[in-house]
Amino acid sequence: MNCPFCTKTPADYFIETESFAAIYNIAPILPGHTLIIPKKHYESLFELSDQELAEFMILGRKVARLLAHLFLTDAFDWAIQEKEAAGQSVAHLHMHVVPRKIGDLPHPGDWYTALEKSELVGIDTEIRRKLNSEEMRTITHRLKEEVGKFFSTNSIST
Amino acid sequence: MNCPFCTKTPADYFIETESFAAIYNIAPILPGHTLIIPKKHYESLFELSDQELAEFMILGRKVARLLAHLFLTDAFDWAIQEKEAAGQSVAHLHMHVVPRKIGDLPHPGDWYTALEKSELVGIDTEIRRKLNSEEMRTITHRLKEEVGKFFSTNSIST
Repeated sequence: MNCPFCTKTPADYFIETESFAAIYNIAPILPGHTLIIPKKHYESLFELSDQELAEFMILGRKVARLLAHLFLTDAFDWAIQEKEAAGQSVAHLHMHVVPRKIGDLPHPGDWYTALEKSELVGIDTEIRRKLNSEEMRTITHRLKEEVGKFFSTNSIST
Repeated sequence: MNCPFCTKTPADYFIETESFAAIYNIAPILPGHTLIIPKKHYESLFELSDQELAEFMILGRKVARLLAHLFLTDAFDWAIQEKEAAGQSVAHLHMHVVPRKIGDLPHPGDWYTALEKSELVGIDTEIRRKLNSEEMRTITHRLKEEVGKFFSTNSIST
C-alpha cells in the first residue's frame, strides 16, 4: 500500500493523541495549513467509532486553537472531503485546518480553489511548492515547541 | 439579535439531538446541502464543551450518512468556516454537509466557490435561488420521513 500518511511517524507529528495526529501539510496553501489524520489507515469518516470521531474532532479543535494563536488570528477553515467526487485526493481520512486572516487571499473561499487546483496538477508544482525534508523537520520541531508552551500555559483545557 | 438560525424551531429541523439540529439550506448550492447548527446561539466552535463538540460531529456524520443514502452516493464535503476571514457569513456556528457526485460540478472543489460567490452577492439571486417557505416545508417533511425510515431499518448504529 502506497499511502503517504501511513509512512508518517511520531517524528512527523507535532501533536498527537492515542489514535490521531497533526502533521504540517507538505505543500501548504497558506501558512499553518495542517492535516489531522488517524494513525491507522482509515479511508472514510464512517470507519471511526463515535468515540474515535470525538477524539478526532477534539484534537482538530485543539490544533485550530494553537494555529490561530501562532498565526495571530481567530479565523480558520476546517474541511473534510469524503471520496473522490468530493475532492479527496489521498485515500486516507484527513481533515484540513487552515488559519485565515482578512485579505490573505482575494476572497475568503479561494483557499478551497487553491487546494483543488494544486490537487489537479499534482502538488509538486509552482502553484503549490512542496517543502523539502529539512523544511518539514524544522517546521514540525518549531510547532512541537509551541505545543509545549501553549498548552502548558493556557488555562483553557481543550 | 437578528440571527436567521435562532428563529428556527423544531418544525425546521429534520433531525435533532438535545443541543444540535440539522436544517436544509434555504439556498442549496447542490441538492442535499444541509447545515448542522447548535440550537443555542454559539458563534464559535470554541464555545462548545468537548462533549457538545462530540455531539455536534456525531450528528454531522449521521446526517452525512443519510444524505449519501438519499442522494445515491458515498461522497460528501464537510466544512466549517470560523469567523469572517474564513468565509463565515452568519455569526451562528454552522457546519455545511453537502452530498457530492462525480460530475455534479465541473471540478470537485467548485462547491466552495459557489458558496463564496453566492455569499458575496447575497443568497437571494439567480446564482443560488432561495427556496420559499412552502418548498422548505415540503423538503423538511420529506427528510424527516426519510430519517425515520433510514435509522429504524439501518443496522449501523451511528
